[in-house]
This record gives sequence, structure tokens and C-alpha cells, in this order.
Amino acid sequence: MSDDKPNLATKSHARLSISASRKPRSLMDEPPRLKGAWTVKIVTLFPEAFPGTLGLSLLGRARDLGLWALETIDLRPFGIGKHRNVDDTPAGGGAGMVLRADVVGAALSEAAIGTPDDRARWPVVYLSPRGKPLTQAMARRFAEADGMTLLCGRFEGVDERVLEHFGVEEVSIGDFVLTGGEVAAQVLIDATVRLIPGVLGNAESAVEESHSSGLLEHPQYTRPAEWEGRLIPEVLTSGNHKKIEDWRREMSEKLTQERRPDLWEKRGE
Amino acid sequence: MSDDKPNLATKSHARLSISASRKPRSLMDEPPRLKGAWTVKIVTLFPEAFPGTLGLSLLGRARDLGLWALETIDLRPFGIGKHRNVDDTPAGGGAGMVLRADVVGAALSEAAIGTPDDRARWPVVYLSPRGKPLTQAMARRFAEADGMTLLCGRFEGVDERVLEHFGVEEVSIGDFVLTGGEVAAQVLIDATVRLIPGVLGNAESAVEESHSSGLLEHPQYTRPAEWEGRLIPEVLTSGNHKKIEDWRREMSEKLTQERRPDLWEKRGE
Repeated sequence: MSDDKPNLATKSHARLSISASRKPRSLMDEPPRLKGAWTVKIVTLFPEAFPGTLGLSLLGRARDLGLWALETIDLRPFGIGKHRNVDDTPAGGGAGMVLRADVVGAALSEAAIGTPDDRARWPVVYLSPRGKPLTQAMARRFAEADGMTLLCGRFEGVDERVLEHFGVEEVSIGDFVLTGGEVAAQVLIDATVRLIPGVLGNAESAVEESHSSGLLEHPQYTRPAEWEGRLIPEVLTSGNHKKIEDWRREMSEKLTQERRPDLWEKRGE
Repeated sequence: MSDDKPNLATKSHARLSISASRKPRSLMDEPPRLKGAWTVKIVTLFPEAFPGTLGLSLLGRARDLGLWALETIDLRPFGIGKHRNVDDTPAGGGAGMVLRADVVGAALSEAAIGTPDDRARWPVVYLSPRGKPLTQAMARRFAEADGMTLLCGRFEGVDERVLEHFGVEEVSIGDFVLTGGEVAAQVLIDATVRLIPGVLGNAESAVEESHSSGLLEHPQYTRPAEWEGRLIPEVLTSGNHKKIEDWRREMSEKLTQERRPDLWEKRGE
């Protein structure tokens, strides 16, 4: 693997601080948090799903260093009655269940404690197949905020009134159906956190730049020179940088036309 | 929550079986497996990322019942030399690192043991931003196979020769950059496994059908009738089914036009 330690050069001014929260902080589980670090608050029926893949590798180490922070807010205790029901049948009939406005509202109010009201500084997002598609530009906007709150549903809708009341943005990670918003939330957080200054090391930032051409990446090769009777294309071992660049460009264009006619049509727009 | 127990009616013929594997099976960690159950094998540097969100709720219970199975294959032991290196610098120069064909090839060969060679029956997929976009139709195709193998990369490419040699399909979950393929693999598996017969309960299957109109879902409401001064739209409590249906259709069309002009243009195609 490449040297994927978070870049520490940018955090010399950082200080540890204790965050304001109604819940006692578990000293065993939670890493430290740098003052002002980007924070995501996740309202979910499955807090045990987090950090999940976000605890691995680059993002996990950046979190251990306090460069970003994650808080889960369990929706269940806000439920109604002995069984802490969080949902009910849809008004007007139909299949499925709908998360209640009062229940979700109470959890979002809890999440809002200590966060700015301005949605540009603190977006509140519901992961939903009805949402606007997640893009790299959207991830960049989220990364530039102070932090954000995510609401995860599971196989049901949310009462529209709570989305209106809290100015909730709906975001979709793609045109496929998932059993729950938790894995979609992890995708959104992964795409966002890696754009926070200091999280990616220098090696990764360089790769990042090489990917921003609007074309799919050309094929890659490395040692051994021959494998299973297959050789590395001769041009790549020629040492002729102009020829290598031309070959890679040509391959990128060919792949993009084949696999992503939509991107190919949009290039240069 | 709705009653989201897996539907057991379809599995009366199923039998437990022990799978063929070189690795000893950990009786503590791994759930039983029904004979012929859909199986995913995941080649990854982070086997601890699994099952992650796939161990929750519906999918987790279906896995506990043996309706589908998950195996991880750690890429690291296939690495080269004392440090078990799995990657090297790109032939022809450039930023980043490339996973070696011999290393990935050895892991994919291990994964291939006991699986059909026919890629229609057993797709082998590399999660990559260069891939074809994941769609619901693709998830349906994967769910109809006997199982599949997934290769997760992390912030680098894979030697093209190994992709060619093993007939690997490249799939992307969207136009955003992730630090690794593990969370993308979880998205693909979630979208796929829920389409396997018996995994979704009847209640969820009904919701599924109501989502397949090619339009975004209309707003939903449930009790209480009034919340924060906001009422449920009158039409939904009118009891007039025709009016309710018309209103929902109109809302769906409006939302789709606003949020997904691409889907709106494609409707009826």
C-alpha cells in the first residue's frame, strides 16, 4: 500500500476539546476531537453500524487523530409508548410504514444542539431514493461546512412535515434500492471526509488530481513484466513520456466512450 | 418498524451444508449456510469491514438463517516478500500504486475454488470508479447468479492483466471518489441480497412494487394529525381513493421533474 498516513502538517494549531452533548461520553470507544473538527451526527435505528467501514485505514486514522468526528443518535428512545414505536401506517393508505414527524423531530432537535442553524454551515440530509444524486461537487460542499446531520431510514418513508420543518435535504447515492440508509450514509461520509484538509496524505492527493479529467482512468500495469503469458504494453516501458501520455489519453477516451457514453457527451460542458 | 422478518415459506426444502474451503471455519463467527445459498466472496485488505451494515436487520437475519452467505479472502497473505507487499509503482510512471496481477490473481484463484467458471452463473466484479454504473437491473442479474466474487481496491488501480485474465467486470456505485471499495461492495451486496427470494418479508415486497413506477415517491404522512402547526394534507384523510391516487401521482411527477429531470425524460422509454 502507499504511504497513507494523514497529513499532520496542517493541524499544528489544533487543540483537544470536550464536545457538548447530553449523553455521557464513553472514554473507551470515542477518539479525541480537535476543536472545530468537522463532525457528522447520524440519526439511526442502528447506531452499532457506525463507524463501520469509516473506522478503517485513512479515515479511521484521521478520526483517531481527531481530524473529524462521528456521533450517533439512536432513534429508538424517542419512540412512542412502551414499545417505543417510531413509525405508523401511511395517511391515505398504502404499503409500508412511515417514520413519525414527532419522533424524528425530537431526534433532530437533539442533534441540533450546539450546531449552527444556517444550513450552508450545517446541512441536514435524509438518505433517500427520492433525493438528488450524490456527486463529487456535493461532497465538496458538505466538506466545506462545519459538519452535518444525517437521517437514516429503513425501508419506509419519513413524514414530509419533519423534512419541511427542519429544512432537510434529500440525497440519493444511486438508482438502486437499499434495505437502509446506513450504508448510504457511510458512502456519503467517506466521499466527504476524504476532502477535509489533512485527511488524505500527499500521495493520495496527487492521485486525486490525476483523476479529475472528466474521463475514466486508463489501464494500469506494474511488476512483474510478464504474468500468465501477458506482457505490459511496450509503450509503457519505452521511457518515451510523450508516447506514454498519448497512449493513456487514447485509452481513457476509448473506455469512457464504451462504458460511460453519458460522461463522454458531457465532456467540455 | 414494520414486520421485517425474512419470509420462511420459500425455504422448506433447504438443508444445512458445510462449504468447501481451505480455511478452517470459525464456529463462533459464521452463521450456518443452506445448501446452494447465494454466496459472495470478497477479496479485500480489510476483511474486518464485513459483514458491517450487512449484518443488520433484514439482511443480517437472512444471513443468520443461511439464506445467503459471505466469505472474506484477505489479500495480504498473498503479498510478496517479508512485508507481503500487494502493490507496486505504475509502469510508465505516475502517482499512486497499482495492485499486482500475481498477488490479486492468487487471491482470485483461491476465491474461484468450488465456483462455476461461467461468468453468468458467477460474476467476478471489481468495484471501481471506471466501472459501469450499478443499477437495479444489474443487482437483479447478480441476485439470479449462484453467487459472486468482489474485489475491493483502496486508492489505487489494479493491474489490467488480472482483470482480463479472470474476466472481471468493473462496476461503479456513482460519480464520487471513495477511499476504498469495501463500502461500495456493501452497497452492491445490499442491493443484490434483498432481491434473493425469501430475504424480504411480504410487507417489504409490497413496498418494493409500489416503487417501480419510474417516478420518485410522493410525500408520506402519518400520525399525529397535527404536528408543529402542520396538518396532514386534507385529501389524504378524505377517504376518497381516486382523489388520493391522483394527488400522489401529481406529487410524484412534480418531484421527479424537479429533482431528476434525467429520469423524467426517460419515462416511458
